[in-house]
Amino acid sequence: AGNFFLLAGPCAIEGEDMALRIAERVVEITDKLNIPYVFKGSFKKANRSRIDSFTGIGDEKALKILRKVSETFNVPTVTDIHEVTDAEKAAEYVDILQIPAFLVRQTDLVVAAANTGKTVNLKKGQFMSPESMKHAVKKVIDSGNEQAMITDRGTMFGYQDMIVDFRGVPTMKEYAPVVLDVTHSLQQPNQTSGVTGGRPDMIETIARAGVATGVDGLFMETHFDPANAKSDGANMLHLDYLEGLLTNLVAIRKTINSL
Amino acid sequence: AGNFFLLAGPCAIEGEDMALRIAERVVEITDKLNIPYVFKGSFKKANRSRIDSFTGIGDEKALKILRKVSETFNVPTVTDIHEVTDAEKAAEYVDILQIPAFLVRQTDLVVAAANTGKTVNLKKGQFMSPESMKHAVKKVIDSGNEQAMITDRGTMFGYQDMIVDFRGVPTMKEYAPVVLDVTHSLQQPNQTSGVTGGRPDMIETIARAGVATGVDGLFMETHFDPANAKSDGANMLHLDYLEGLLTNLVAIRKTINSL
Amino acid sequence: AGNFFLLAGPCAIEGEDMALRIAERVVEITDKLNIPYVFKGSFKKANRSRIDSFTGIGDEKALKILRKVSETFNVPTVTDIHEVTDAEKAAEYVDILQIPAFLVRQTDLVVAAANTGKTVNLKKGQFMSPESMKHAVKKVIDSGNEQAMITDRGTMFGYQDMIVDFRGVPTMKEYAPVVLDVTHSLQQPNQTSGVTGGRPDMIETIARAGVATGVDGLFMETHFDPANAKSDGANMLHLDYLEGLLTNLVAIRKTINSL
Amino acid sequence: AGNFFLLAGPCAIEGEDMALRIAERVVEITDKLNIPYVFKGSFKKANRSRIDSFTGIGDEKALKILRKVSETFNVPTVTDIHEVTDAEKAAEYVDILQIPAFLVRQTDLVVAAANTGKTVNLKKGQFMSPESMKHAVKKVIDSGNEQAMITDRGTMFGYQDMIVDFRGVPTMKEYAPVVLDVTHSLQQPNQTSGVTGGRPDMIETIARAGVATGVDGLFMETHFDPANAKSDGANMLHLDYLEGLLTNLVAIRKTINSL
Repeated sequence: AGNFFLLAGPCAIEGEDMALRIAERVVEITDKLNIPYVFKGSFKKANRSRIDSFTGIGDEKALKILRKVSETFNVPTVTDIHEVTDAEKAAEYVDILQIPAFLVRQTDLVVAAANTGKTVNLKKGQFMSPESMKHAVKKVIDSGNEQAMITDRGTMFGYQDMIVDFRGVPTMKEYAPVVLDVTHSLQQPNQTSGVTGGRPDMIETIARAGVATGVDGLFMETHFDPANAKSDGANMLHLDYLEGLLTNLVAIRKTINSL
Repeated sequence: AGNFFLLAGPCAIEGEDMALRIAERVVEITDKLNIPYVFKGSFKKANRSRIDSFTGIGDEKALKILRKVSETFNVPTVTDIHEVTDAEKAAEYVDILQIPAFLVRQTDLVVAAANTGKTVNLKKGQFMSPESMKHAVKKVIDSGNEQAMITDRGTMFGYQDMIVDFRGVPTMKEYAPVVLDVTHSLQQPNQTSGVTGGRPDMIETIARAGVATGVDGLFMETHFDPANAKSDGANMLHLDYLEGLLTNLVAIRKTINSL
Repeated sequence: AGNFFLLAGPCAIEGEDMALRIAERVVEITDKLNIPYVFKGSFKKANRSRIDSFTGIGDEKALKILRKVSETFNVPTVTDIHEVTDAEKAAEYVDILQIPAFLVRQTDLVVAAANTGKTVNLKKGQFMSPESMKHAVKKVIDSGNEQAMITDRGTMFGYQDMIVDFRGVPTMKEYAPVVLDVTHSLQQPNQTSGVTGGRPDMIETIARAGVATGVDGLFMETHFDPANAKSDGANMLHLDYLEGLLTNLVAIRKTINSL
Repeated sequence: AGNFFLLAGPCAIEGEDMALRIAERVVEITDKLNIPYVFKGSFKKANRSRIDSFTGIGDEKALKILRKVSETFNVPTVTDIHEVTDAEKAAEYVDILQIPAFLVRQTDLVVAAANTGKTVNLKKGQFMSPESMKHAVKKVIDSGNEQAMITDRGTMFGYQDMIVDFRGVPTMKEYAPVVLDVTHSLQQPNQTSGVTGGRPDMIETIARAGVATGVDGLFMETHFDPANAKSDGANMLHLDYLEGLLTNLVAIRKTINSL
């Protein structure tokens, strides 16, 4: 019944400077607002629409930057893994292993993540019902790891749009803590160009609904210069808007806690 | 920036006693909570799945009960119309004419409602985007009536489910005041039995998200005995839960107003 | 096990000349190919996106043109009705009364059509499952009229697209003869402009799939100048392509009949 | 313009006897009908709903059975891969590497498959538009491998249903040969039980529509005892029905070829 927690950071670790710069600002804001904070950054991008899309700066290099952020600001970190062999490697550097939405049905990957003993953040597939996430959580628990969480990042609605089904919040809270990924939930995928669009103007709308319906945490990608970020520029929240957004959400959370 | 308003009442006017009994209780609650209240009741049910479903007690009889409720408790009333000839008839008895979701693309009906000078509540078709409601509102305005409002009652998601797209709230507020119909939004239509199901356990979830995202009003069907109501029993809120629900929603609204 | 039948003609009756010109050409083609033909034309357009869209040339005038077509070419005719009062009026002039997809849940309208004794063509709502059309057919039969047919015109898929679910063909054939509306099925509705788009390049693809899966009839809107038609220009088939299309479909039908 | 080709076999390789038995029967039928045949079998099942679902008999063991089938009946084989390290391993034994629908956005996996020089069968994600498969094909071609094919296995429609969008056939044929997976397209996923359901009664309907719209190949899972198969029992075609089904489809194909 305290505050929601926050998983936030850039889509991809593009370098040490940008990672530290983003972390520093988010730490400042979340300290002020008493929001438990986990720094988020992908060490590689494996599921791009096009082969010429940016895929990362090198796995070890990016993972070391995640550790550096953790040590510098004393915050836990989360990154996403894409192959069984990623699990142990990433677990050396981060606190939470995230299973991407497209991969959450891959039993081997979920079990490999669970076996590291780290918290496993299971993203709900865009093609999955809230109810079916019960099985993904069960795979973690059956591996002897009780630290599962679920992140909703929207559900396919036609080919080029996604919707967040807020009925999923209470439903999935029966299985594990629930996080709402407010930036990816607003993606508009499958665009003919191969570049995913988005609706960042709707971030606060979706985030307010999430907090009002009782999510345990929020996930968002943020950057000081989204337009020039190497991936997901169309969806990330500009860092300048983060404090205002979180301030509003904390107020709603306090009210929700009092009900 | 005051409180949200409430359109509430039984699905269908089944008789004077039940209408007055429901209205009395809702008036009590909304007076206490300072919620502007409009009594809602259908004078006929025209779009039932089966020919043997209940369709009403007689048009004039039901409309007179709506007027009686209005006079007894000094509240405005709303009812839905299904044919051009309903518009003038209903306008003699009620304050707001509602266009059902399936019929909101029928220009003749919308214009007939607009021409009465009454407020027109346009339900968003389950098959329509929030953006396309702009055209429905424009039909009211082009008829010389500025009193349009939009009610979202969910969007088809597969054959047997609906989702509320909360991106629609800010989008549609650009066209007219926006109401969220929290009970019909939770219907599960097209069931093989011909009897629409629902998820009344999700009413508070959906309502909280609506208030948090800034709806101007809420719409809900309520009854002191939903299980024995003659229509929509699967979706109506039991009257006993109304005060608790609204109390919570008013608290969220106050917070939203303060942001 | 003979040939499929064809409901075809312009979207709206824009005048006598255009109606006769279209009918003459379709009659020529269908006579040659032994396809039972029903001339189709709307006497009014009631569910337009915008109030300034074309809605017709006058009800009586358009209905008389339908009768003229029928008498001139000795073909039956079909038109769509939108209000209870339309049913008897249209029944004086045409052979099949069609219930628009948005209106197929309006019991009064379906029953009024059934009571005329004419064949009732029920369009499947874009928001309805094939299974739920059973209830619409039952309303016709329960009114003492055995002459129901069902026309599929696609199912909403996201806000701005539709898909034809061919599982619906065998499913709905259990209730009544099934027609595939190949032009409306390819609409792309809810466009921000208020003007529905379409994919006429996909007409033959969808029609072939329909014949291969056993539809009893096909429905298509056709015009000698779709680009300048007063409604649905984006979807109608150019009359010049009709013979080639039907020739291919008849060949597939013959094969299907032989299996 | 010859016959369509067929990818068929059991969902999973459960053992040598069952694989040979299924292959023998399919070879008999396809020889008789002049259908180019590729034996299909999964050497492991990686994306099961539940951790206790059957996942395979051992990778090497299953791959060797695939080779045995190939040598015994002189047919090519196809299997699906789930991790980069699977690509080279499987390429030693089979002719076509298949990328599962959930994994078709994983660039590393697609490129690893392409780099083996084997044909790459890309399953369209249930969450992807036909148009977006252009990017998946491009990843194969950009890796220097021209042998890509696309298999459609349906598109999510709500949480618990899938639809085949036949507009995708001509669309995707612009990128690569197109195969229709008629058994998985009829799955009904996300069932609360964690066991995927299906509509095997619709196999012929969907297959006919596929052949009529011009697919290059068909994919189907078949077993002599689907009810006792270790995976996907709800969807596989009973081997006894295969000859009748293919005979009908070949007749339609011949007609299509003649148009």
